[in-house]
Amino acid sequence: MSIRIGIMGYGNLGRGIECAIKQNDDMELVAVFTRRNPETVKILTPDVNVYSVDEAINKKDEIDVLILCGGSATDLPEQTPEYAKYFNVIDSFDTHAKIPEHFNNVNKVAKEYNHIGIISVGWDPGMFSLNRLYANAILSDGNDYTFWGKGVSQGHSDAIRRIEGVIDARQYTVPVDEAVMSVRNGENPTLSTRQKHTRECFVVVEDGADKSRIENEIKTMPNYFSDYDTTVNFISMEELLKNHSGIPHGGMVIRSGKTGWNSENNNIIEYSLKLDSNPEFTASVIAAYARAAYRLNKEGETGCKTVFDIAPRYIINKSYEEILGNLL
Amino acid sequence: MSIRIGIMGYGNLGRGIECAIKQNDDMELVAVFTRRNPETVKILTPDVNVYSVDEAINKKDEIDVLILCGGSATDLPEQTPEYAKYFNVIDSFDTHAKIPEHFNNVNKVAKEYNHIGIISVGWDPGMFSLNRLYANAILSDGNDYTFWGKGVSQGHSDAIRRIEGVIDARQYTVPVDEAVMSVRNGENPTLSTRQKHTRECFVVVEDGADKSRIENEIKTMPNYFSDYDTTVNFISMEELLKNHSGIPHGGMVIRSGKTGWNSENNNIIEYSLKLDSNPEFTASVIAAYARAAYRLNKEGETGCKTVFDIAPRYIINKSYEEILGNLL
Repeated sequence: MSIRIGIMGYGNLGRGIECAIKQNDDMELVAVFTRRNPETVKILTPDVNVYSVDEAINKKDEIDVLILCGGSATDLPEQTPEYAKYFNVIDSFDTHAKIPEHFNNVNKVAKEYNHIGIISVGWDPGMFSLNRLYANAILSDGNDYTFWGKGVSQGHSDAIRRIEGVIDARQYTVPVDEAVMSVRNGENPTLSTRQKHTRECFVVVEDGADKSRIENEIKTMPNYFSDYDTTVNFISMEELLKNHSGIPHGGMVIRSGKTGWNSENNNIIEYSLKLDSNPEFTASVIAAYARAAYRLNKEGETGCKTVFDIAPRYIINKSYEEILGNLL
Repeated sequence: MSIRIGIMGYGNLGRGIECAIKQNDDMELVAVFTRRNPETVKILTPDVNVYSVDEAINKKDEIDVLILCGGSATDLPEQTPEYAKYFNVIDSFDTHAKIPEHFNNVNKVAKEYNHIGIISVGWDPGMFSLNRLYANAILSDGNDYTFWGKGVSQGHSDAIRRIEGVIDARQYTVPVDEAVMSVRNGENPTLSTRQKHTRECFVVVEDGADKSRIENEIKTMPNYFSDYDTTVNFISMEELLKNHSGIPHGGMVIRSGKTGWNSENNNIIEYSLKLDSNPEFTASVIAAYARAAYRLNKEGETGCKTVFDIAPRYIINKSYEEILGNLL
C-alpha cells in the first residue's frame, strides 16, 4: 500500500513535492490544498483534486502525511502545530533562531494527538545540519564552515525588487574561491562575512530609471548587501528570462579537524550540493522524510522530530537486506 | 560519569581509538588488550594498563563498550560475536560481501546477551555508506559514484612487498581527475575500473634487483594492478621514510540524480574526505558510534546495529538543546 500524501500550498516547493512523489513508487499524491480559488490552480498529476485549505481537515482519514509548503515567517509557526492535531506533518521551517520554539510547539500537539511532526527538513536546515552534526561528532576538535551558492537567493532578489524603479531582479550568492580553497587546504582560516561570499545582482529597471541611485541603494542596503562585495548588472527583461529563470542553488558544509595524540594530523570532511533546482531538491529531501514520518508513526512513535532523531534506514524505499547488501 | 572504553588490539587503529578518547571528554580508556606480551606494548595514556587478550572477559564489569580493532579477514568474524556475549561491542568489519552474514552472527548473540553490537563502522563502510543511503533516498533517480584516494592502500602495498627483491613499498590509489570532473558536471558517465583510478607505487628494492621484472610483476598482477594504469617509481629507503611514512587517505561519494516532472533538472550530492591519517579518522568515527552503543544499550536496546540504524543525535557529545540551537 502506498503512503498517501497531501500537499498544503502549491508554489515552487509544493510543485517540487508533486514531482518527488512521482519518482517514489511507494508514495501517492491524494490531495493538494490551496488558499487560492482551487479552480485556478492547475497541478501536474492527473486525477488528483485541488481543494480549498478549509477542506483539509475533512480529508484527514485519507492522508498519511501532510506536507506543509508554506513560509517560515508566518505560515508554518501556525500551520505545523495546528495540523499536527489531524495529521502526521512535515515542514521546512528555516528560521534557525526560532527552531527550538517551533520544536516545542509542534512537539506538544503531536504528542497529545499521537502524530509525528518532522520540522526543518530540506538542505539547510536539513542535510547541511546533519552533516554538521556527523562531522562535529567525529572531529570533536575542529572548525565548521558553511558556504552557500552559487545560487539564487529569493530573499535578496525580493529585496532588490522593492527598490523604486526596479521591475525584476535575480540575486546570486557566490562563495569566494580563495576562502573555500583555504578551508579545503586545512588552513582553518577565520573568515569575515565579506571574505566568504560575494553577491551578484541582475536587475531590470524601468525606462529612464536612475541606475546609479539603484545600484547605490542595493550596495548599501543593511543586512542584505552592505557587508558584502556586491556586483550590480543592469539587463533587459529578455535577458533575465533567457539566462536567469532557473532556481539553482547549492553550497558546502566543511569541517576541518585535528586528530592524533598531539593533534598533529588534519582531516577535512566536506558535504557539497550543486542543484539545478533548489525547490525540487528540497522537496526530494522532504519526501524521503515523509516516508520516515509514516513509518515511525506506524511503529507507535509520536511527537516532534528533526533529521537528528531519525535513523537513516527510515528514509529510504529499500529493504534492510538491500541496504546492508548494497549500500553499506 | 564517563563512558568506559576497552580497546582490543593495539595497532594503528587501536592507537587511533586511544587518541580519539583523549579528544572526547565523556569517554575514558580503561584497558587495552593485546595478543602480544602485554609488557612489550607501550601505550600513550598514563595510568592505563595493557592486558593479555585472555584477561578481557574478567574486565567485563569495568567496561561499557569494547572496541574491536582486529582485521576483517579472520579476527572480527570470530571476535565480534564472541565478545558480544560479555560487552557492548563495535567493529570496523569491512568485507562488504560478508556484511549480511556478520550482521546475523552478531545480532543473534547480542540479542541473547542483551548487548549492542555495532558493525562496519569507519568511513567505507561507515560514513560513505551513510552518504550513499541518504543520497539514494533523496535522489531516487540517479547514479552513484565512489572514488577512493588519493591515499595509501595497505593491501596493495603489502602485495608489492611480497614480490621477490622488494624491501618495502607504498601504493597510492588516485582518482582520475577527468572522471571526477565528468561526474561533478552531471554527465552521468559510465566508467570502467581503469577510467576511475590510477595506481602509483613507490618501491624500495634490494641492491642489484631486476627492476624491469619487478615493475612488470606489479603492473600485471591480477586483481590488484592489471586492470589499472599503474606507475612504478623505484626510490631509496631514505626517500620512502621521508616522503611516504604517513597514512593519508580519502575519497568521494557522489550521487548525480534527476528531479522535475520530466527529469529535466540534475542535482549533485558529494561527500568527500581528505584525511592526513586514515586510521585516526576511522577511529574517530568508531569512538562516536561507541557513544551510541552505550546510550542505546542504556535505553534497553539490544542486537546488531549499523550506521543505518542509529539516529544521528546518539553519536554526538552535546545536549539536544545544543544541537537544535546550534547545528540544525
